[in-house]
Amino acid sequence: MKSRAAVAFAPGKPLEIVEIDVEPPRKGEVLVKITHTGVCHTDAFTLSGDDPEGLFPVVLGHEGAGIVVEVGDGVTSVKPGDHVIPLYTAECGECLFCKSGKTNLCVSVRATQGKGVMPDGTTRFSYNGQPIYHYMGCSTFSEYTVVAEVSLAKIDPNANPEQVCLLGCGVTTGLGAVKNTAKVQPGDSVAVFGLGGIGLAVIQGAKLAEAGRIIAVDTNPAKFELARVFGATDCINPKDYDKPVQQVIVEMTTWGVDHSFECIGNVNVMRAALECAHRGWGQSVVIGVAGAGQEISTRPFQLVTGRRWLGTAFGGVKGRSQLPGMVEEAMAGKIQLEPFVTHTRPLSGINEAFDLMHNGESIRTVVNY
Amino acid sequence: MKSRAAVAFAPGKPLEIVEIDVEPPRKGEVLVKITHTGVCHTDAFTLSGDDPEGLFPVVLGHEGAGIVVEVGDGVTSVKPGDHVIPLYTAECGECLFCKSGKTNLCVSVRATQGKGVMPDGTTRFSYNGQPIYHYMGCSTFSEYTVVAEVSLAKIDPNANPEQVCLLGCGVTTGLGAVKNTAKVQPGDSVAVFGLGGIGLAVIQGAKLAEAGRIIAVDTNPAKFELARVFGATDCINPKDYDKPVQQVIVEMTTWGVDHSFECIGNVNVMRAALECAHRGWGQSVVIGVAGAGQEISTRPFQLVTGRRWLGTAFGGVKGRSQLPGMVEEAMAGKIQLEPFVTHTRPLSGINEAFDLMHNGESIRTVVNY
Repeated sequence: MKSRAAVAFAPGKPLEIVEIDVEPPRKGEVLVKITHTGVCHTDAFTLSGDDPEGLFPVVLGHEGAGIVVEVGDGVTSVKPGDHVIPLYTAECGECLFCKSGKTNLCVSVRATQGKGVMPDGTTRFSYNGQPIYHYMGCSTFSEYTVVAEVSLAKIDPNANPEQVCLLGCGVTTGLGAVKNTAKVQPGDSVAVFGLGGIGLAVIQGAKLAEAGRIIAVDTNPAKFELARVFGATDCINPKDYDKPVQQVIVEMTTWGVDHSFECIGNVNVMRAALECAHRGWGQSVVIGVAGAGQEISTRPFQLVTGRRWLGTAFGGVKGRSQLPGMVEEAMAGKIQLEPFVTHTRPLSGINEAFDLMHNGESIRTVVNY
Repeated sequence: MKSRAAVAFAPGKPLEIVEIDVEPPRKGEVLVKITHTGVCHTDAFTLSGDDPEGLFPVVLGHEGAGIVVEVGDGVTSVKPGDHVIPLYTAECGECLFCKSGKTNLCVSVRATQGKGVMPDGTTRFSYNGQPIYHYMGCSTFSEYTVVAEVSLAKIDPNANPEQVCLLGCGVTTGLGAVKNTAKVQPGDSVAVFGLGGIGLAVIQGAKLAEAGRIIAVDTNPAKFELARVFGATDCINPKDYDKPVQQVIVEMTTWGVDHSFECIGNVNVMRAALECAHRGWGQSVVIGVAGAGQEISTRPFQLVTGRRWLGTAFGGVKGRSQLPGMVEEAMAGKIQLEPFVTHTRPLSGINEAFDLMHNGESIRTVVNY
């Protein structure tokens, strides 16, 4: 079938809105009509060409919501008409990782997903006969996309897709990092580095976990207002100090914070986040994705004196088991999504969404088809 | 009073056996007659001059056992005749850290201990009128030493001091890292880097925790026999492979080990230990103490895909609360200490103990007074 899509033909170039061909879903696959998609920094990272695993031409996008159109052989968990959120972290329920009870990092489609193809090793997208790669198992920048059944969370059809699409990535990552990875407890202190969508979601998660002090850190003070709306108790601009921000935070809190979160992808900030963690038990969660080849470092003394360095992907959330419940929490108003959607654009305005993000003007621009 | 002691007058020089003056214990302090002391790599590290916090002249030694001779004002938890193990990690029970229930890193005497003096800021040791520094709050290389009351674990007087002195540092650190820091569960896989006293204690701890596969790693294959005695199921010499040892271990185990332990103090090995941890949940515990200014590093992707980087000091063990029970376990044969004591020497042979350690011939040489 034909589908309108924003295709990234080459790194560093704007997306082109074209009509691509989408093949029907094969065994274990599902054709989904995307109604809304967020534009996330990870899309921009791959588009920039800095992502060493980036492949072109490709249909980017991994933070979407849509409706099932057609299912391939053997698909039982969804049917046409179901409302769904595509998952870049699949959940097969069968693999070593899914069965471990310790992680959400399902490996069922991992190898092929990383190569931009469906589990059978081929793509469902083409343009003028030229194959186009899939992206993160989702490719939500196409009105019609094909995803693996294990990569779909079925959600309440009454949910607002313009908002819950954000649960496909950023908001879930931030909330999950607090709840599943750090396991923030009431009264705990928290520092959040980077006040984009994920950082704000971490703040919201910390507030939901009844954290005590929530210290928001960003070099752009324009972000502080929204951080305070979500629950930040202190806002710090590292540029206002002539000493390292970790030292500022340790001095503010005597021994550091119980939990810190790096939501940028900057390895220097990752170090600062670790080093502002509380002596004896403080932990730091890496959420941001760093550039190719970059490394984190610190003195091992930081660990020997009780700090713990962790990371998280999709906030440790198991998409098919847990995302439907998070959608319900959003519908009940427990999880707030509306403040994240600072801009909306039609598909034709998708490059503007990238510009708004790069300029720091948007938290999320949601594109509707 | 006069006391025989092995004094480190200057970095890089052998210890000198001399008669020093030891002042009586002041308020909150205890005079202890040391009967036995292990010689640990940390003593050698400070003696070498590489320890940036090393102070000279000093009475080194921190892995001892002894008997209380005299107590200062206000001391209530021990009395003359009590058998004790000095603690380089105090336990006051009153500070933020002791009360947290999350760490053993008591801060009650931390600041002065690091400066080589007693909590009132002065030293009890002198030689020909020249002050001599304390070391790690213990200074077990003197027949008579003065330690803070909070730095003494009272133990069963029937315990064998030649063996239980090793619970003052290395063995406790290794056992505790497994039990308190990593919390190894039955069936878990483990990799241990460095088969000195701490590494062997980690293996013993893993065996006690009913770990499944226990992979022992050392560049000296002479260490493998004892590793197997303690419970290692696989022994690896990184020199036997032309690829990084972390890759060897990941290939042996498909996805890496559930827990890894660095027991050397080598920052490159710390990286290998992290990177051989299981995707999704594997954790790596830094135990070894690295040289001044050295840093650990890795790609943050290692953390984002679920590995956790931790550290431990004294195995997370609270000395006054928990060490007496470990002494009882040793007396009951549950904890094996005898194989660690490969050599014994009188105080006059203490420099030989350092040589045996440097040559890799000993696990522990215990010095008896």
